[in-house]
Amino acid sequence: MPQKAVFYHAGCSVCVDAEQRFAHALNPSAYKVEIVHLGQSPERIAEAAASGVKSVPAFVVDGQPYHINFGAALADLGGGA
Amino acid sequence: MPQKAVFYHAGCSVCVDAEQRFAHALNPSAYKVEIVHLGQSPERIAEAAASGVKSVPAFVVDGQPYHINFGAALADLGGGA
Repeated sequence: MPQKAVFYHAGCSVCVDAEQRFAHALNPSAYKVEIVHLGQSPERIAEAAASGVKSVPAFVVDGQPYHINFGAALADLGGGA
Repeated sequence: MPQKAVFYHAGCSVCVDAEQRFAHALNPSAYKVEIVHLGQSPERIAEAAASGVKSVPAFVVDGQPYHINFGAALADLGGGA
């Protein structure tokens, strides 16, 4: 059964690139990927922060954050945090 | 035809974790992944650096570096660079 992975992004160019490169390229037998745009869903910023996400784009898998390059700091996204 | 992706690492715990989470989970129809241990293959440090890799673990896809979290700085790996 695939594990859940959440890909947090904010629509920035670094984010979109990482989404295309990785979020859509993970093996569906390994991961079921949920893509969350924190600009459009600012109420989920707190959840991302609680998982240790410091910047986007980032994956959270099994409660652990995996930051891919640097698009934007979570603290700069504002919203619900 | 799958695109080539190179996963550079140095055996650190952050590297091994990222390798298990992502390097082995990419869809084989999307990427053919080569895994390079820069501690064991220091002659490839220069190649990684030329692609813009600053730290490991990192993927290089289509000439672009994708750093995943931070395990070790490339500059600290020594070897052939």
